[in-house]
Amino acid sequence: MEDNLESVMRNLGIAARQAAVVLAKAPPQQKNDALATASAALLESKAAILEANEKDMQAAVDKGLPDAMLDRLKLDDQRISAMARSLDEIKELVDPIGQVIGQWDRPNGLRIQRVRVPLGVIGIIYESRPNVTVDAGALCLKAGNAVILRGGSESFHSSRKIHACLVVALKEVGLPLGAIQMVPTTNRMAVGYMLRDMSSYIDVIVPRGGKSLIARVQQDARIPVMGHLEGLCHVYVDRAADLEMAKAITLNAKLRRTGICGAAETLLVDRDCANTHLAPIVTELLDAGCEVRGDVATQQVDQRVKLATTEDWSTEYLDSIISVKLVGGVKGAIEHIARYGSSHTESIVTEDAAAAEAFLNEIDSAILLHNASTQFADGGEFGMGAEIGIATGKLHARGPVGVEQLTSFKYVVRGNGQIRS
Amino acid sequence: MEDNLESVMRNLGIAARQAAVVLAKAPPQQKNDALATASAALLESKAAILEANEKDMQAAVDKGLPDAMLDRLKLDDQRISAMARSLDEIKELVDPIGQVIGQWDRPNGLRIQRVRVPLGVIGIIYESRPNVTVDAGALCLKAGNAVILRGGSESFHSSRKIHACLVVALKEVGLPLGAIQMVPTTNRMAVGYMLRDMSSYIDVIVPRGGKSLIARVQQDARIPVMGHLEGLCHVYVDRAADLEMAKAITLNAKLRRTGICGAAETLLVDRDCANTHLAPIVTELLDAGCEVRGDVATQQVDQRVKLATTEDWSTEYLDSIISVKLVGGVKGAIEHIARYGSSHTESIVTEDAAAAEAFLNEIDSAILLHNASTQFADGGEFGMGAEIGIATGKLHARGPVGVEQLTSFKYVVRGNGQIRS
Repeated sequence: MEDNLESVMRNLGIAARQAAVVLAKAPPQQKNDALATASAALLESKAAILEANEKDMQAAVDKGLPDAMLDRLKLDDQRISAMARSLDEIKELVDPIGQVIGQWDRPNGLRIQRVRVPLGVIGIIYESRPNVTVDAGALCLKAGNAVILRGGSESFHSSRKIHACLVVALKEVGLPLGAIQMVPTTNRMAVGYMLRDMSSYIDVIVPRGGKSLIARVQQDARIPVMGHLEGLCHVYVDRAADLEMAKAITLNAKLRRTGICGAAETLLVDRDCANTHLAPIVTELLDAGCEVRGDVATQQVDQRVKLATTEDWSTEYLDSIISVKLVGGVKGAIEHIARYGSSHTESIVTEDAAAAEAFLNEIDSAILLHNASTQFADGGEFGMGAEIGIATGKLHARGPVGVEQLTSFKYVVRGNGQIRS
Repeated sequence: MEDNLESVMRNLGIAARQAAVVLAKAPPQQKNDALATASAALLESKAAILEANEKDMQAAVDKGLPDAMLDRLKLDDQRISAMARSLDEIKELVDPIGQVIGQWDRPNGLRIQRVRVPLGVIGIIYESRPNVTVDAGALCLKAGNAVILRGGSESFHSSRKIHACLVVALKEVGLPLGAIQMVPTTNRMAVGYMLRDMSSYIDVIVPRGGKSLIARVQQDARIPVMGHLEGLCHVYVDRAADLEMAKAITLNAKLRRTGICGAAETLLVDRDCANTHLAPIVTELLDAGCEVRGDVATQQVDQRVKLATTEDWSTEYLDSIISVKLVGGVKGAIEHIARYGSSHTESIVTEDAAAAEAFLNEIDSAILLHNASTQFADGGEFGMGAEIGIATGKLHARGPVGVEQLTSFKYVVRGNGQIRS
């Protein structure tokens, strides 16, 4: 069985490497035709996908998985249509491969160009959402990369049917089937094998999932990782904040969608405006059905507020829960975020330009906003098209990982006989 | 002893993290003053540095280290002056921190900027060259990063004296001494500790050294690595090559300096021009004192040519030795390089534009040149100023790693109350 797994995985690796060579040279039209064909195939296969999803859902219910996970796993007519639309949108993105992203001449006559190229082979390890199969597969294809997908075992049947639509499309346009492969087993040892033993086949691992998955990947990987950490995002309401704006931004940042990584988890309020701003914002959160866990001062605002523990400042709820704390101005906010944040996304609400600049400059997070909701932390909202997620590492990609972030570059140097003196 | 090492290393980490916060906000003038002061300090400390170097050299001779390593280790008046000049040059580079490297507006009025920021804390692990202490320390400082330097034990005394000059400069301008630290022990366990146990202190590891160092780093690191692999560089002489140009480029690529990673190690000659081009190039190499290890066809050119073994095609000689092989045109060259190359730097000599484009497009190396010597693979020659080395990975930095490649970026988003619908 183990021998068999190894040979299965190695074959995936070999096929991916071979496909990557073809994909690097594939014309934009051919890749786009594949995306269009896959989109149509998804719509045509709705019944089969829903049937497979029903099987996954049944097993998940039997296993007693929590509702949030069931919701992520569940497919319906609309969600499948959304996946097909996503493919159409990725098709419309500018093809990044071959773009000259820098060019200069040297005094000796050499002309240097930086030219965008694919990364090669990408391994994506994700959890229960079946739609990642489509987005990750399509973005990698657009960027000229071969991809090996390893989805969660809960969504195995759904992902397999979705993957079959992508394979139909590759076949139809004459691209190698090694371009988008799915690990054909739920054996968990496959993940370890990908991380540790496939460094000659896989150029980058992109983990997309919860804390424990990311921790495992960072511990075991012998391959570069493009990390997507949790989003412990903060909204800071400064003494110079417009109250209505602060209310609107906090409510939106927390409650528009609670399950995404750009959702706010902690509200920090300047002690100097606690008298005027704290109660209205907290009351509105409570009235909207949000659980509030506050420090002592916040508790005094409303008896529905629970007392926060230290653990709350470092908890990513991904739920209708928010922690609230008074801080000593922008300096206090910066200190709190340095201590408890996950370097993802933070927002300051203020009319004071100096406070805003301090916040934007001094905090070391991927995305910093002034007078806007943290829920804008999204590749689509940034105008970058679809994304795989928000990278919180500082190497290569930081922030939204879209098609450009899935590329590398090379230097092309043209001369007429130059030698170095 | 081990407990002691751990606490020494942890203290380095804590000091570096604290320094990184200060450095990220340090004004360009302060960093430049530190570089100028360090340059002057190096020149003033020449006698002490040479004395320390003498100690290292004596130990190295006693240990019987090879001449090439002794040469790298050896300092003299000129080499110290060159280090001081390097500091002055890094001072003159544009300060990268705070640069807006991208800016766009969204339809909802959000203004998005990508702003360059430091990486944070960089760990540099290198071998015997003491000048790396200066270049790495200064480039990291310029880019606003704190750095922990771990040089080879052979150069320990030299590096310590050089490092002391950098410390003097930090002190003089009021920057934290944690900005540029050197591991104060030759205990080899320090490297393992840096790689495995300092992920909360170090953001990126940059190894600079031979194959075995790099392999160890890639195996043990639990921290992102900016890899500098070997340079198994190729020159391909196409059937449409100008013979004089091919001779000049091959000689320069191999022999200008044999010990740098951009030196050519293998010459590939198009079978279709073997009759006209092979003998003149090989003879000139041999006459210049270069050992030639060729395939059977090359051996027939001159009796001084030795027969190459398969191992030669994957050997980075870093010496006056070159392997030579006939290939079937540009396609054959591309295949050979895909099989044996290290994705560093390759050059094609040809007057045929189509052959050149195939070579430049289809080979997956960091630097590809047309009609120019591989010895141009260098940050200075690219106009990027000093460099730490040539990165051969595809994530983040590829090619020369200069001051810009030692930075990350963040997104700064300015709004006026936008919430996401």
